[in-house]
Amino acid sequence: MPKVTEAHVEARKAQILGAACICVANKGFHHTTMQDICQEAGLSPGAVYGYFSSKEDIIRSLAEEGLRKQDEVFGALQRERDAPRALLRFAETVIELLDCPVPAGESQEGDPHRLRVLLWAEAIRSPEILEIVRAHYLRGRAALEEIVRRGLAGGEVRPGVAARAVAQLVLSMIDGFVLQKAVDPDLDGRRYVEGLRMLLDGTWWTVADERDQHGNL
Amino acid sequence: MPKVTEAHVEARKAQILGAACICVANKGFHHTTMQDICQEAGLSPGAVYGYFSSKEDIIRSLAEEGLRKQDEVFGALQRERDAPRALLRFAETVIELLDCPVPAGESQEGDPHRLRVLLWAEAIRSPEILEIVRAHYLRGRAALEEIVRRGLAGGEVRPGVAARAVAQLVLSMIDGFVLQKAVDPDLDGRRYVEGLRMLLDGTWWTVADERDQHGNL
Repeated sequence: MPKVTEAHVEARKAQILGAACICVANKGFHHTTMQDICQEAGLSPGAVYGYFSSKEDIIRSLAEEGLRKQDEVFGALQRERDAPRALLRFAETVIELLDCPVPAGESQEGDPHRLRVLLWAEAIRSPEILEIVRAHYLRGRAALEEIVRRGLAGGEVRPGVAARAVAQLVLSMIDGFVLQKAVDPDLDGRRYVEGLRMLLDGTWWTVADERDQHGNL
Repeated sequence: MPKVTEAHVEARKAQILGAACICVANKGFHHTTMQDICQEAGLSPGAVYGYFSSKEDIIRSLAEEGLRKQDEVFGALQRERDAPRALLRFAETVIELLDCPVPAGESQEGDPHRLRVLLWAEAIRSPEILEIVRAHYLRGRAALEEIVRRGLAGGEVRPGVAARAVAQLVLSMIDGFVLQKAVDPDLDGRRYVEGLRMLLDGTWWTVADERDQHGNL
């Protein structure tokens, strides 16, 4: 029954990675030990070491999972031929993923916003974590830049717009959401996405003609 | 000579706060001691305690200085009557402030991007720091919302646009810059601001008419 076995392996790995998230959010990367992770996962050290050789191995897997999810989102966007629409879809999809409610009973410390903010801070002090965070960032930025360049070639993006700056700003809108959600759990993801949609559509402001009309009302 | 004395007090305080920034960036908030700060500042404990009663007092002063600078920026915007222009000016001003090069000889660990990311992470674990970060965030958000509401009343902002979402997105563009600058020191602040200006001006994309024209070329 290889299918059952594979599902079992995946479930165990997810269990260990989930436990690692909670430990790291509570104690930080440096202070989390393999023992902490075993305890949080409710597994023996032997069981955990059967799947991961070290704490570093677990952190690498967490980062790889993040990259895999990001690549999936970009893969789905390949079918979207209009560049402005593809960027909007990217930002909306990622923010909706990030805004998912924390499953009942899970520690608040383990939620994705808080964990991500801790990961950023860890990157300031650990060259190894910095490399993981930077790789994730550069890969996402490159994929968004590629979408903008396609739009420049296709004429949907105005000549003179810097592809890199667009990529950076779209990523900022996602990172800013993560940060504000971590500081203010009441943040309404749907309203945020709605504002983002209007910003990218260029419909935040009225045009000058409409303003005059309004002034005459 | 009260003026000389006042200048001296301010210079000493700035020296101590600067040293605290470097210590905190290197060791984190919890692990920084008053002794570390004295050593970094090159001052005796007696000299430091003459200005600040505790480490918490120093951190509070750092946070208050941040709030004061933010209030100054908002104060300057009161004269700008057009809401879209005021939001753009706000974002540009803050990003230019944040993008200032680190003074020669200063530790890279003490630069404002890295320190701010550490502060966010600290807010995840310390209720006291969370309150400081949250107060800063809520005050900034409220000031931006007020600008958007003025724009809604004046007709420059399209009816139906959520003032809060606009405030959140503008703050995201600043926080995202801080984060990306911390991970990628090569980030070009001027290009970022230029992209932001075009985004807020609604000139990232060509309009449908222009696209058709382009298609016909």
